[in-house]
Amino acid sequence: MGDWWTPLVMRESFYGVRRFEQFQASLGLGRNILTERLRRLVANGLLERRKYQDRPARYEYRLTDKGRDFYPVMATIMAWGDRHLDRGRGAPVKLRHRGHLSQPTVVCSECGEPLDVHDMSVEPGPGLPHRLLKDPIVGPRFRPRPSQPAQAVQ
Amino acid sequence: MGDWWTPLVMRESFYGVRRFEQFQASLGLGRNILTERLRRLVANGLLERRKYQDRPARYEYRLTDKGRDFYPVMATIMAWGDRHLDRGRGAPVKLRHRGHLSQPTVVCSECGEPLDVHDMSVEPGPGLPHRLLKDPIVGPRFRPRPSQPAQAVQ
Repeated sequence: MGDWWTPLVMRESFYGVRRFEQFQASLGLGRNILTERLRRLVANGLLERRKYQDRPARYEYRLTDKGRDFYPVMATIMAWGDRHLDRGRGAPVKLRHRGHLSQPTVVCSECGEPLDVHDMSVEPGPGLPHRLLKDPIVGPRFRPRPSQPAQAVQ
Repeated sequence: MGDWWTPLVMRESFYGVRRFEQFQASLGLGRNILTERLRRLVANGLLERRKYQDRPARYEYRLTDKGRDFYPVMATIMAWGDRHLDRGRGAPVKLRHRGHLSQPTVVCSECGEPLDVHDMSVEPGPGLPHRLLKDPIVGPRFRPRPSQPAQAVQ
């Protein structure tokens, strides 16, 4: 995602910001840096640059499906920060989902239980380069663990 | 989290790696950089440095509760990458949770529905600096939206 401005630009998009001047006013960053970060988010397909006015031509930056799908990722990162980095002050922002107070929670798509690293194991997917399977370090990760199949640490 | 080595060190921890030489062999990074990244993860409370042998003294790096709680965050980031950055090759690694194939999914803690930015609104939390509430840019985020309370973008 590049440097820290990039997620902050995304955060502004999630707050509904679309226009260059709004991004700049919220984030207080230089025009050059903002132009570059927006350009990169468009190139990576998270934002779409769309003309909203003709004379003079003016553009706004809208979330794509890929960008919108990044929201749960960012919400999860922020929830972790709220739990562990708040220095006792409490979360700066509380989330409501359809009106009720909500914590983003990462669960298993199959059984709905919260994910815990101790319950996880991995297997090679279609995108794994073949050489890695034979790698003496990476290969053994994909063998079932002797004691329990789900053990990952401790 | 610092540079890209830091999440990779955490990934190794999630795979069960504990010892300096194992981290180094998996990641192929220099000793100085690895020492520094481990030191930072210990300072930030994600890993704990624990002596496992006396003469000579040897240490290993174990996940703390805070570090373990970072697993769902990393799994969510990786799942997003698998969906959007795989260039058509498919995921490099498939996850099993207690034996069944699993996708990390971010849901609302209250109702269990997947989080969508369009359903979210925010309100000030205890950790929000007071001056921000009066800020002309930040303040309006916390006012209920006129059309529907949950609308965030589009």
